[in-house]
Amino acid sequence: MLISIDGIDGCGKSTQVDLLTKALGAEQIIQISPSRWGKTLRGLASPTWEEQIAYFLADRAGLVPMLEAHAGNADTHLVSDRSYLSGVAYQSFESSLSPTQLDAINRALVPDYDLQIYLHIPVSKAMHRIETRGEAKTWCENPELLTWATRVFERWAAEHDYIAMVDADQTIEEVHADVMTAVRAASEAKFGRIVW
Amino acid sequence: MLISIDGIDGCGKSTQVDLLTKALGAEQIIQISPSRWGKTLRGLASPTWEEQIAYFLADRAGLVPMLEAHAGNADTHLVSDRSYLSGVAYQSFESSLSPTQLDAINRALVPDYDLQIYLHIPVSKAMHRIETRGEAKTWCENPELLTWATRVFERWAAEHDYIAMVDADQTIEEVHADVMTAVRAASEAKFGRIVW
Repeated sequence: MLISIDGIDGCGKSTQVDLLTKALGAEQIIQISPSRWGKTLRGLASPTWEEQIAYFLADRAGLVPMLEAHAGNADTHLVSDRSYLSGVAYQSFESSLSPTQLDAINRALVPDYDLQIYLHIPVSKAMHRIETRGEAKTWCENPELLTWATRVFERWAAEHDYIAMVDADQTIEEVHADVMTAVRAASEAKFGRIVW
Repeated sequence: MLISIDGIDGCGKSTQVDLLTKALGAEQIIQISPSRWGKTLRGLASPTWEEQIAYFLADRAGLVPMLEAHAGNADTHLVSDRSYLSGVAYQSFESSLSPTQLDAINRALVPDYDLQIYLHIPVSKAMHRIETRGEAKTWCENPELLTWATRVFERWAAEHDYIAMVDADQTIEEVHADVMTAVRAASEAKFGRIVW
């Protein structure tokens, strides 16, 4: 199965990606690879939306063979720390491209995910987590952007069956339990059984 | 030098690319590479604009190292049969992306060309050439698309110093002479001399 976990910064993605990876015996990747495009993107303090779209697409194209090897596959599993879905939410902020356009462009490139999990958390709680980390904030970590992204994530989760919204404002164990419930449901729906 | 020759289908690009390649002792490439993305793109009878943008960007990303090796380089020369400039003109037709957006996204990815040559020809003459080839027409070869693309090419050539418009409604030799004039001017402007 090909599964991503998306959500705003501070929602607890990386922790849940680790737990899900172990539960499935899966491989794990992060959305931005160590390709030249991924490195360029990480190196920009405040990329324009054109740079984000160009570098994310160029980087993602390199990940496609790996995504395809797992999508719809009952035998091997890949958990991605973010996917293009975060791009739909983030890259449409103060952009001349809409979420719908970004979705269509990205989905022309990548295979269908078996499941995308959106970890929902109030922006105020996410900002609190980010601020108590004690690290310098990145350009992504501002409340206006996170509020916009939350609206897009909520709308996409409501409108697409392959996206499951999970309440991330719970303990790590509770969130993991809800994640597993969503993954089991997707496995049953797609393969008629639990495949891991 | 990194030089492209762009223009609508039937403008005589390939012939002029060959002549310029020989005159400069250059390497030559075509805009769509034999990558998986290039092959996908060529295999689609009528790609959506989202597919065009996604596959062209993914394919172009693979060409960037070669483009960079020649851009601004007085020692080696590369002539490209089309460039992202044709994407700006063609992919904005019946698209929700404007030429300006396509230009910005593509130019985030590729290095600056030393010169882009736009071969201008009336659409009626281009269509006549296409129809007398005796080959099946592709989705690109319709008068509405070519009329749109011509307007964008003309506007871009008028607004950007690095684009030279050449009248392609002349004999092959006359067009080549005008191409060489434009390339010499670019070489003088950039390097203070003729570099081939």
